[in-house]
Amino acid sequence: MKKIAVIIGPSQPNVIERKRAYETGKFFADKGYIIATGGLSGVMEEAMKGAKEKGGLTLGIIPTDKKQDANKYCDIVIPTGMGRMRNVLLILSADIVIVCGLSEGTFTEIAYAIAFKKKIFTYGFEIDKPYKIPYVKNLKELESYI
Amino acid sequence: MKKIAVIIGPSQPNVIERKRAYETGKFFADKGYIIATGGLSGVMEEAMKGAKEKGGLTLGIIPTDKKQDANKYCDIVIPTGMGRMRNVLLILSADIVIVCGLSEGTFTEIAYAIAFKKKIFTYGFEIDKPYKIPYVKNLKELESYI
Amino acid sequence: MKKIAVIIGPSQPNVIERKRAYETGKFFADKGYIIATGGLSGVMEEAMKGAKEKGGLTLGIIPTDKKQDANKYCDIVIPTGMGRMRNVLLILSADIVIVCGLSEGTFTEIAYAIAFKKKIFTYGFEIDKPYKIPYVKNLKELESYI
Amino acid sequence: MKKIAVIIGPSQPNVIERKRAYETGKFFADKGYIIATGGLSGVMEEAMKGAKEKGGLTLGIIPTDKKQDANKYCDIVIPTGMGRMRNVLLILSADIVIVCGLSEGTFTEIAYAIAFKKKIFTYGFEIDKPYKIPYVKNLKELESYI
Repeated sequence: MKKIAVIIGPSQPNVIERKRAYETGKFFADKGYIIATGGLSGVMEEAMKGAKEKGGLTLGIIPTDKKQDANKYCDIVIPTGMGRMRNVLLILSADIVIVCGLSEGTFTEIAYAIAFKKKIFTYGFEIDKPYKIPYVKNLKELESYI
Repeated sequence: MKKIAVIIGPSQPNVIERKRAYETGKFFADKGYIIATGGLSGVMEEAMKGAKEKGGLTLGIIPTDKKQDANKYCDIVIPTGMGRMRNVLLILSADIVIVCGLSEGTFTEIAYAIAFKKKIFTYGFEIDKPYKIPYVKNLKELESYI
Repeated sequence: MKKIAVIIGPSQPNVIERKRAYETGKFFADKGYIIATGGLSGVMEEAMKGAKEKGGLTLGIIPTDKKQDANKYCDIVIPTGMGRMRNVLLILSADIVIVCGLSEGTFTEIAYAIAFKKKIFTYGFEIDKPYKIPYVKNLKELESYI
Repeated sequence: MKKIAVIIGPSQPNVIERKRAYETGKFFADKGYIIATGGLSGVMEEAMKGAKEKGGLTLGIIPTDKKQDANKYCDIVIPTGMGRMRNVLLILSADIVIVCGLSEGTFTEIAYAIAFKKKIFTYGFEIDKPYKIPYVKNLKELESYI
């Protein structure tokens, strides 16, 4: 069974969040992980773009029921027709979750990652409320966890 | 169409949370709202018990696919077979959400309530991270919102 | 716990199917059942209209995430945002399922009713493939089953 | 984007159904398709075993929320925690659906495949009720459709 790294963050990220997602995609693709995201734009697209540059395999779990709504870096598309409820499926598929930035949707994913006891890290910033999430300043720090 | 008040909080509440749930159930039943919860124990059961004492109607959206898993105060049971993903359905059904205490599951519900722009209040305590949620000290303060 | 009769059939029914749905809604409302449907038009709307004329309580489990998409006879609306996948939830909520006509969506509901071992009847017509479903010519025949 | 062949049939198949599944898995893996199933035993396992023998990639969309419940031929596992409702997700992920045998669960998948206008074929046997599904006697006949 292949390991899956789920990379989450805003669909309208700033420059720093975008760079984090891209680097995280590259990093985990290089380690042989599948890169899974919500399959749309922003952090989702950057992470998958990074993964593809390293020859990685990408999985998009998208809110609509139409495969063509996925971004162009998705190798495998699961159209759910479940809207934002698909965030829960995305988290369930994870062996590790990396948070590259925050948005309303991202908080639903973080909350489910905690509820399902998933391994989760923020990359490049800290969250300490409502729960403390382990934090890495650079991706190399993740090597001991994967 | 009837209005639905969703009451959330821990399944293993302390005495104060239990009392808040019970009072909130009574309060909204008295206003003609349907009281909806996750249909199991703790805050869920107390809220529905309160509602039934006021002759209210109760709706349980439960994680399993078996109606008999609902608590005895549920008038209407929707067995989902979706596990904790059913929290999303519960929030979608809400016209107003009242938080009577916190748990891992409750955070998934709060996060979705924010994502879906639902009217949400904490009762008896404050949350200001990761987002500020409107707060009431007593239920009468809710009267201008309902 | 209240019993729930789920009434299914096409959203664009013919005159006979429409009449069956309306009568079935009246029949079960009169017996104290909640009438549940997919909450939209056609058979769904007629069944709920019938139920309301008898003072019954109605429950619509709708495909979108917006309560206003339900028909005007829905007392309680569960917006799912799950599209046609909500058919599965509708069937799970049933104590009895009555089929008033056929459509592609109806077949998904029948198939799940069989898979979940729900009590199911066709009213006014027979299905014998792919499985034989018990059949009633008039609603009075149901009285021994409810 | 990679194409996905969804292979369905009973979890307790007979010898013929088992052989059909195994061959269908090999056939589509050879064409570069991902082989997706419900990720458990029987037809699901045989199809994925066949795919792996041809070096194919396999995707299991499983009913529980635990990856370890998947069969050993699954490369990618999506744990849904949705029970049999996950059949709908499996069908949504399909570019083509091949039916290798029938069971109660399989009928839910066929019904959704029809409702979502998916390309679907029975292999080695015919269904003509409640709807006529295109039928192939041998897999070579599929070549003009893929």
